[in-house]
Amino acid sequence: MNAPTRCTNELTGDGPRSAVAALLRIGEPGDGLLTGLVDEVGPITVLELISAVAAGKSSAAEAAQSLSSIGVMVAGGAQLDRAFDRWAVRGEQAHGVRDLESVSRLGGRLVIPSDDEWPAALNDLGPAAPLGLWVRGEARLSTALRRSVAVVGARAASNYGTKCASDLAWDLTAQGFTVVSGGAFGIDAAAHRAAVAGEGTTLAFMAGGVDRFYPAANTELLHQVLDCGAIVSETAPGMTPMRHRFLLRNRLIAASSQVAVIVEAGWRSGALNTARHALELSRAVAAFPGSVYSASSTGTHRLIRFQEAQLVTSCEDVVGLIAAEDPALFDEGDLTSGQRQLPSADPVDDLAEREKICLNVLSATKSLDVGTVAGRAGLTVPDTLSALAVLELAGLGARRESGWVKLRPAT
Amino acid sequence: MNAPTRCTNELTGDGPRSAVAALLRIGEPGDGLLTGLVDEVGPITVLELISAVAAGKSSAAEAAQSLSSIGVMVAGGAQLDRAFDRWAVRGEQAHGVRDLESVSRLGGRLVIPSDDEWPAALNDLGPAAPLGLWVRGEARLSTALRRSVAVVGARAASNYGTKCASDLAWDLTAQGFTVVSGGAFGIDAAAHRAAVAGEGTTLAFMAGGVDRFYPAANTELLHQVLDCGAIVSETAPGMTPMRHRFLLRNRLIAASSQVAVIVEAGWRSGALNTARHALELSRAVAAFPGSVYSASSTGTHRLIRFQEAQLVTSCEDVVGLIAAEDPALFDEGDLTSGQRQLPSADPVDDLAEREKICLNVLSATKSLDVGTVAGRAGLTVPDTLSALAVLELAGLGARRESGWVKLRPAT
Repeated sequence: MNAPTRCTNELTGDGPRSAVAALLRIGEPGDGLLTGLVDEVGPITVLELISAVAAGKSSAAEAAQSLSSIGVMVAGGAQLDRAFDRWAVRGEQAHGVRDLESVSRLGGRLVIPSDDEWPAALNDLGPAAPLGLWVRGEARLSTALRRSVAVVGARAASNYGTKCASDLAWDLTAQGFTVVSGGAFGIDAAAHRAAVAGEGTTLAFMAGGVDRFYPAANTELLHQVLDCGAIVSETAPGMTPMRHRFLLRNRLIAASSQVAVIVEAGWRSGALNTARHALELSRAVAAFPGSVYSASSTGTHRLIRFQEAQLVTSCEDVVGLIAAEDPALFDEGDLTSGQRQLPSADPVDDLAEREKICLNVLSATKSLDVGTVAGRAGLTVPDTLSALAVLELAGLGARRESGWVKLRPAT
Repeated sequence: MNAPTRCTNELTGDGPRSAVAALLRIGEPGDGLLTGLVDEVGPITVLELISAVAAGKSSAAEAAQSLSSIGVMVAGGAQLDRAFDRWAVRGEQAHGVRDLESVSRLGGRLVIPSDDEWPAALNDLGPAAPLGLWVRGEARLSTALRRSVAVVGARAASNYGTKCASDLAWDLTAQGFTVVSGGAFGIDAAAHRAAVAGEGTTLAFMAGGVDRFYPAANTELLHQVLDCGAIVSETAPGMTPMRHRFLLRNRLIAASSQVAVIVEAGWRSGALNTARHALELSRAVAAFPGSVYSASSTGTHRLIRFQEAQLVTSCEDVVGLIAAEDPALFDEGDLTSGQRQLPSADPVDDLAEREKICLNVLSATKSLDVGTVAGRAGLTVPDTLSALAVLELAGLGARRESGWVKLRPAT
């Protein structure tokens, strides 16, 4: 078990950590503008500017101006004025040290991108990556997420779905995978419960603060998750789960797992949102089949029907999907490095614009034929073929029988 | 109801019809060599040659020789000697007129390719097309198979699968589709039964003679099928169903339907063989999902998982698959023409070898990317692109978002 020694030190005055803590209260999850600023000038500077606006010491326009004067170019910079006004509303309440203290009293900690514990997989979210993660529990994120599968689905799960989720999580646990889910009723709870029963590692990503167990009826289960895994959230302590926070929480579940398995989902289930995030991140997405008469399977059937998810019927099928992926995607080197990485540092820089566009169009999980790549890239087919050939030589793309896929360069 | 007036006339001495009747007893289903000979010189000449060998009036070598002397080129011609020996074994028992009479007494008839009633869809089987079909029942084949869906699956069906098949066949019937199946226990019986209940048209393709109801326990159901559809077989009256005849019978089910829907299938179900035939014929293949704990769904899940079948959950989904196909495939003109057609008469003749190869590689249901086409055709990618462009101009191929597909020329 990793004792959370880090947190104790932070309280004495770790500038970046307490700044991130404050910014996590100021910004809503997925605020790409805030993340962009922090990437450019660091959390302390950003927090100082917001605090100055909040205290009336400077105007939002001045804060925005001061950043442009130091040459910051952030996407959406034109809206910086308004953003500073928005952030300033919460600027007064944001006391990073106080939040660090309160979570530390619960045995928790804040993990930030410069920490060894930071799970590099989350960096795939790019500007939507979280500034930091509040964590409670014995598991170390970087280790736990080295081999992890998201098992999610409907709250209103059927007995069948509950059994599928339970059997899958049990088998994944036996093979040493971390089971990631959302702590909700139904499929999520069944997955966590089986992982706990199997004495495996399981992580619950919450839409509210880690000091609250939501839903309250799952309190006992979530205490068990703490003992053999972790409860994780990017929202500040005390914050309540709200609809948009659930949806944004789902992107963390998708990003932190090699495969997202949707066990049951109704026609408009939130689990489909997790699948969507996983697809956008080029993660493998899988879904369980079920009865055509069950409303709980309409969403999973839809995913399979439109080939957005692979049909799986067992843990073996799920593990097969991981093996089919490029192993370099989640190799040791990638996951233990602390810094937020540009996913394509060296080799991509050498590419011409045409190849870069093609690379962006490619997916790591779904192969595309040349015509499709050309159509999406806005290039002629011959140009596309040349670009793909360059990407293949650079080890960034590969031709499979079913079409072209993106490869991740080894780091 | 179409009275089988034709048969009465045939008995008086329709040479080709009684010759086909005899040849259906002589050859096993799917004997491509026999079909090829009949296509070249007609059934009467072929039967005369076999009869001569059977009666010891000529040797097999002489019979084979006589065909080569009239310039017949048949694939597999080198084995003609042995084939004549094989056919001659049954030549003595083959009395076409007697079979026509016995089936006529049951109210049945023999439908041969030159008849108006001949279902042109079966010509897609090429050299594996049947020489003729024994038919009992009120339905006219060419009309019944204009809009038809095969609903097949496991004999050992679950209650769930039985309900799926029943609901699907009921809904298809309500929309005017003919339900084609194999008359077996389980899924097949459920499909026929629902079509009968819905007062629709349903056809049972049998692996034995149409004078036998197999399995006997389905006798009452098969009598109902006669009343509102037809029982069809290419095997001679009195012949018993045997394993290889079931497998060959499946090709007729696949060829006679626009879509083959596998409702339930175990890991090694014969229904998977029907799916395979349908895929080879570029027919749409669909499968129902089910419980991952049901052995009856392991085969359907496998088909879906490997994208050999589309997941469907309702009649609506199945009909959607037909709409997605090229409507020209089963249009009126194609189905009412009596002659066995070369599927690609005029436009294909104009193609260069390169384009013909690419056309052969393409599938009408599964789109392929350029790389795959090139790989299978043994051509370079630029040559493949040129060939595909020619096929597109000729209306024989089309580029979909997911890749290239084969189009059938309008006839």
